[in-house]
Amino acid sequence: MDSLAATEAVSRIFSDTSVLQAMLAFEAALARAEAQCGVIPARAAAAITEAARAPETFDCAELARQSLRAGTPAIPLVRVLTEKVRAQDQEAAVYVHWGATSQDVVDTALVLLLAQCRGVLVAGHQRVQRGLRRLSQDHANTVMLARTLLQPAPPITFGLKAAGWLASLRRGWSRVDSRFAESHYLQFGGASGTLAALGDRGIQVSEALADVLGLKHPDAPWHAHRDRLAALMAALSIYTASLGKIALDIALLMQFEVGEAAEPGGDGRGGSSSMPHKRNPTACMLTVAAAKRTPGLLANFLTGMLQEHERALGGWQSEWTTVQAIVQAAAVAAESMAEVAEGLRVDTGRMKHNIAATGGLVFAERAVILMAEERSQAPEDCLGSAEAFRERLLQGDE
Amino acid sequence: MDSLAATEAVSRIFSDTSVLQAMLAFEAALARAEAQCGVIPARAAAAITEAARAPETFDCAELARQSLRAGTPAIPLVRVLTEKVRAQDQEAAVYVHWGATSQDVVDTALVLLLAQCRGVLVAGHQRVQRGLRRLSQDHANTVMLARTLLQPAPPITFGLKAAGWLASLRRGWSRVDSRFAESHYLQFGGASGTLAALGDRGIQVSEALADVLGLKHPDAPWHAHRDRLAALMAALSIYTASLGKIALDIALLMQFEVGEAAEPGGDGRGGSSSMPHKRNPTACMLTVAAAKRTPGLLANFLTGMLQEHERALGGWQSEWTTVQAIVQAAAVAAESMAEVAEGLRVDTGRMKHNIAATGGLVFAERAVILMAEERSQAPEDCLGSAEAFRERLLQGDE
Amino acid sequence: MDSLAATEAVSRIFSDTSVLQAMLAFEAALARAEAQCGVIPARAAAAITEAARAPETFDCAELARQSLRAGTPAIPLVRVLTEKVRAQDQEAAVYVHWGATSQDVVDTALVLLLAQCRGVLVAGHQRVQRGLRRLSQDHANTVMLARTLLQPAPPITFGLKAAGWLASLRRGWSRVDSRFAESHYLQFGGASGTLAALGDRGIQVSEALADVLGLKHPDAPWHAHRDRLAALMAALSIYTASLGKIALDIALLMQFEVGEAAEPGGDGRGGSSSMPHKRNPTACMLTVAAAKRTPGLLANFLTGMLQEHERALGGWQSEWTTVQAIVQAAAVAAESMAEVAEGLRVDTGRMKHNIAATGGLVFAERAVILMAEERSQAPEDCLGSAEAFRERLLQGDE
Amino acid sequence: MDSLAATEAVSRIFSDTSVLQAMLAFEAALARAEAQCGVIPARAAAAITEAARAPETFDCAELARQSLRAGTPAIPLVRVLTEKVRAQDQEAAVYVHWGATSQDVVDTALVLLLAQCRGVLVAGHQRVQRGLRRLSQDHANTVMLARTLLQPAPPITFGLKAAGWLASLRRGWSRVDSRFAESHYLQFGGASGTLAALGDRGIQVSEALADVLGLKHPDAPWHAHRDRLAALMAALSIYTASLGKIALDIALLMQFEVGEAAEPGGDGRGGSSSMPHKRNPTACMLTVAAAKRTPGLLANFLTGMLQEHERALGGWQSEWTTVQAIVQAAAVAAESMAEVAEGLRVDTGRMKHNIAATGGLVFAERAVILMAEERSQAPEDCLGSAEAFRERLLQGDE
Repeated sequence: MDSLAATEAVSRIFSDTSVLQAMLAFEAALARAEAQCGVIPARAAAAITEAARAPETFDCAELARQSLRAGTPAIPLVRVLTEKVRAQDQEAAVYVHWGATSQDVVDTALVLLLAQCRGVLVAGHQRVQRGLRRLSQDHANTVMLARTLLQPAPPITFGLKAAGWLASLRRGWSRVDSRFAESHYLQFGGASGTLAALGDRGIQVSEALADVLGLKHPDAPWHAHRDRLAALMAALSIYTASLGKIALDIALLMQFEVGEAAEPGGDGRGGSSSMPHKRNPTACMLTVAAAKRTPGLLANFLTGMLQEHERALGGWQSEWTTVQAIVQAAAVAAESMAEVAEGLRVDTGRMKHNIAATGGLVFAERAVILMAEERSQAPEDCLGSAEAFRERLLQGDE
Repeated sequence: MDSLAATEAVSRIFSDTSVLQAMLAFEAALARAEAQCGVIPARAAAAITEAARAPETFDCAELARQSLRAGTPAIPLVRVLTEKVRAQDQEAAVYVHWGATSQDVVDTALVLLLAQCRGVLVAGHQRVQRGLRRLSQDHANTVMLARTLLQPAPPITFGLKAAGWLASLRRGWSRVDSRFAESHYLQFGGASGTLAALGDRGIQVSEALADVLGLKHPDAPWHAHRDRLAALMAALSIYTASLGKIALDIALLMQFEVGEAAEPGGDGRGGSSSMPHKRNPTACMLTVAAAKRTPGLLANFLTGMLQEHERALGGWQSEWTTVQAIVQAAAVAAESMAEVAEGLRVDTGRMKHNIAATGGLVFAERAVILMAEERSQAPEDCLGSAEAFRERLLQGDE
Repeated sequence: MDSLAATEAVSRIFSDTSVLQAMLAFEAALARAEAQCGVIPARAAAAITEAARAPETFDCAELARQSLRAGTPAIPLVRVLTEKVRAQDQEAAVYVHWGATSQDVVDTALVLLLAQCRGVLVAGHQRVQRGLRRLSQDHANTVMLARTLLQPAPPITFGLKAAGWLASLRRGWSRVDSRFAESHYLQFGGASGTLAALGDRGIQVSEALADVLGLKHPDAPWHAHRDRLAALMAALSIYTASLGKIALDIALLMQFEVGEAAEPGGDGRGGSSSMPHKRNPTACMLTVAAAKRTPGLLANFLTGMLQEHERALGGWQSEWTTVQAIVQAAAVAAESMAEVAEGLRVDTGRMKHNIAATGGLVFAERAVILMAEERSQAPEDCLGSAEAFRERLLQGDE
Repeated sequence: MDSLAATEAVSRIFSDTSVLQAMLAFEAALARAEAQCGVIPARAAAAITEAARAPETFDCAELARQSLRAGTPAIPLVRVLTEKVRAQDQEAAVYVHWGATSQDVVDTALVLLLAQCRGVLVAGHQRVQRGLRRLSQDHANTVMLARTLLQPAPPITFGLKAAGWLASLRRGWSRVDSRFAESHYLQFGGASGTLAALGDRGIQVSEALADVLGLKHPDAPWHAHRDRLAALMAALSIYTASLGKIALDIALLMQFEVGEAAEPGGDGRGGSSSMPHKRNPTACMLTVAAAKRTPGLLANFLTGMLQEHERALGGWQSEWTTVQAIVQAAAVAAESMAEVAEGLRVDTGRMKHNIAATGGLVFAERAVILMAEERSQAPEDCLGSAEAFRERLLQGDE
């Protein structure tokens, strides 16, 4: 039922096993950092690391069931991990999750998983970007109708149109990328965000832990301050919306009556169960669907930001599915539009034909001047600064 | 990762197998209805019914993969089903999905699955309702502070408070229930919603199909008119919000400093990984989280309602995860609050104590009159119409 | 800046003067009801009624300023009203707002204003409905392309299309109408919703007050239970979305390359500042814009429903602009589409031409059967149950 | 009705007169730039500048009425301005709005108005920031309960809490500020975004125009690419949410049963119409209400980003009220919390008392270790890294 709203790569990152692995990575790294700082015995750290190494020995379905009871996945996980450690080393068991709270492990796991998602998204983004750049260059001189309020307007070039798309994605990705970096922080604060259980060695352990996990060390725990994640979610949603705009434009150009562009089609794409010969804008549709799903999800994330005191009652816990769904939407959109950008077929003849069909209607603006000056009204002479704008857009403005 | 946002019962209904089963049920019923009406051979219907009987022989993961390519789960499903039929009866294969379009099978499957969800939700609702009714009756005379803007206000009874909660849920469920009934319609229109492939036997087949599936027969296909589903989604979201209000009230009463009520706790509930002795409002938290997740989801559904022409580009396809998530939120909230309503512990002593602690501050309103009349200021004398309101609320106003 | 998102009629209802008038109507009616029940002197009621009769003597700008300070418009209003009464009748002043709380006057005023909005909306709705019915009847036999995913599909009639639009609005309005009725309740509860200040005469006064104002009397005050209003907001949002779907369809048909329909134009409509000859789908655009503004507003209303205890901290106070904006969106959409439905120009020749241009592509579905039977492929022979569906839709299914 | 959702300063910026003034500023600057570049006669520019100088001679109500008909405020404005110019100089009239399109003037006016809003917001932000910094410094050693899921947790300091609030706002404002800068661009593209009417002098005029208006010059017009504005709206919404979190925390601390903090009150603040002696968290309430209003507004903005081709059908036109409402929410929240941060009363005795009341319950975490080491359990000894975190937060991490 979710298959149209998820890519395999991102689904793998948010799979039970992968989430479990990220949580265990936190617990193992914590033990190691605490051993380094002399807070727990080295032998305990070794036992914990060992037990955390085998995610396949955990019963994910049972953990999920207990998580719903406990209101957090961390409590059942820590319990099972503690049992596994105890089976090996009775004394080490007490040091599992030492000084940490549920949200430490869940948030840090989320940050680790998001870093993996960045890798998936950047690959799709680069494909879209290359495809659009090539389209813009190939069609620098391809004249076509502009359309405003879905009505014809004075001509532009397809190269300019593609450059506009490209520039919006470049700006969008640049925001996404800096927000990924901004939110790549360790979460580690213990029950109240003071690392009280670690006495005066809290920050030392915390910095060691960040180091082990390859995460930045924040000024302080951020249990109830979700603005960095919110900024990432907003950037992803805006980026997806820009992809959605491109998809909608192309689907409109693909209308039979317009016929100026076509999705590449390709394996398994674009059919119809009742009209097998039909070519549908399937990748564009998936992208538009993704872009229609993100705004409400982002709203939910922001609603959840009013988090009570040091740890929230519901606002935090409602984040997880939202974060996942936003990343999936961006991934589906980027992957779909990568395919489109790489293989878009442009019908330059049809573009000329559609201009001609307006019978000069769309030249009225420029015609005022041209008529006075007795100059031509060929579409090519009415492009104003289209090429200059196209070139600037390709170079980038930021 | 989703474990806090899903109940097992609803997850089972929306599992791959269950969705597949619902889609196959449509295809089998369609064949049967068409055979009944003499549109396809009885033998073909038998072969299709037979092939559709074994969902376990379908490769769900592969279907999901192809669905993302095709932009719809129906195309790969029909292809595989056709192959299975062909393996048994070469001639029958052409009659699979005869006259139907992708959206017919997907929408009808959704309607069938939603009817199952109704069963799950009603059970939870009845438990909450019984629990709250009992609380309201038991505490008809339990005086407690009202609170407005989180500040103390003249006293009410806990019975009145519980009756207000109950009445909001009764109204809410009544809307949900009538919206389930309103949306329990067959979807069957073929490529353009005219059943053109069935010539002049379209409506006859359509009515037979509705009959086989136990669904109502609509005036016409509703491929691009989603208002009935939207009304159901809205009703579920409002119902979940009412549960969220109750959960928030109880969580506020459970604050250590207030201490007037407590969740029942129970197996696996309410612990803390760093403070094992602590009692958390876990079920309330899960409910608040659910209620914070629905508003944006509902917004997404409504955004998707601007569906182009006879079948939409993205607006329809974005619905599925949204519908699922809204139902899951309602289910988590109802199930959690059922547990709370059935087992809530009320500290009547603390309620009295908290009134006393205000030092009469909250009686000022009534005191104006009482002082003039030299009558008592005991909380019991300041309840106004609380009991009359409580009784009316329990009886119901609609 | 708001001029595209508001109709004059609704703006008048929510103008400062009109809101003030509704609040004063509550205060006057309260005094009258309390005098009737012997709670306050008849002379005081007369003085209050007198003072409340002249909204033009209140300084709205100053009241707005003080409202932001007080966090409610009721406190400054009551203060000014009390002063005005005191100037006339020293003793009567104490009886202003007797036994009521801020939210009583604000909520009741809102309910009174919403009833006025219903009158505005129903007028627009009836115009749309009549226009669409006529279009559906006039074009029962007008064959046109269906379009799915913005690609051509087997033909339908424009009469069927218009009937589908009409039926969605009829269902939508029926929900709106019953939700207006459902929410037409008095709000009157005093500080804690118990009418404590009125001792044992609370319900008697409350019923008299409802009577004076022509409102239904609820089982109990509903200060923190907003589900009825939420249901109205949801119904309005769904109705607006259905109008948005129609507007989008028509704007797509108006594309130069499609050319099958055109907005009536008319005084001041549809121009372009750079291309004066251009005909834009202005009314459709305003409607689409309205439909894109409602989903998030509805989400905000639902988010606000988690209202703490007897009166909320922010959730309630955030409702007002949301309610207004949702009603305005429905009004702009209904008024705009009334104009469109009444004057839509349909180009039946272009519809035929567009079918022909597909070269029979769209008949593939029916052709399978027709070819076997050596029957014609004229569009008219491929309409399946279109006419039967059209007739049923016009009659209504609920 | 809107008085709780608007500050006077922002209302003034978005008033009819102010919006008109900004639009006229564009038209005058355009004429001046075009005269500079020799595109229109200097005399025409002088006449246009002159006519644009007197916004008070325009009939705003009539312009608003015509805007709703025209679907844009620019068309009636240009018409009236042209008439005024013609009255002075017949020949100059044709040069009004030369080469521009409606969206050029509306978008540029919006950018100019937003720059004014930045000035209002920064003032409020600086007040909040100073207030919180002082609170954090004054209460570096004020021990209080942490609270998680609304239950007591091991102690923190109020200084740490305030520092966490401050740091979230500093990050939030830094995003807002950079997004204001990022979106401070001229909009100027003519009918299709190519400045075709200006032939080969488009960019020259455009740069001159940006210069006159003090705006940055974009690579190309951005009529249908709204990502920069979206990023600003998202940043403002996140900032408002962070203010909402602080307001909610303080309102919770202000509960009678908790009593650890109190809003300053002050002129006209926090009363109750039924309980005049009551102190309500009014400023916090206004802030929470603002934060509950933004998420759906932001969702609406993002939904509108799927803008068709070169100029959109509804997505763009739905932006204006949304942008305004988001800015107003941020302004109300910042102004309200400035007052709170500057005057918050902190009851350190009550904080100590509340810790004591838990009977040591909250020390369990640290106690495990302390008991083993036979050290004290005084709250002061259980603060872990609270002070180190506080200091780092005050210094800032970005």
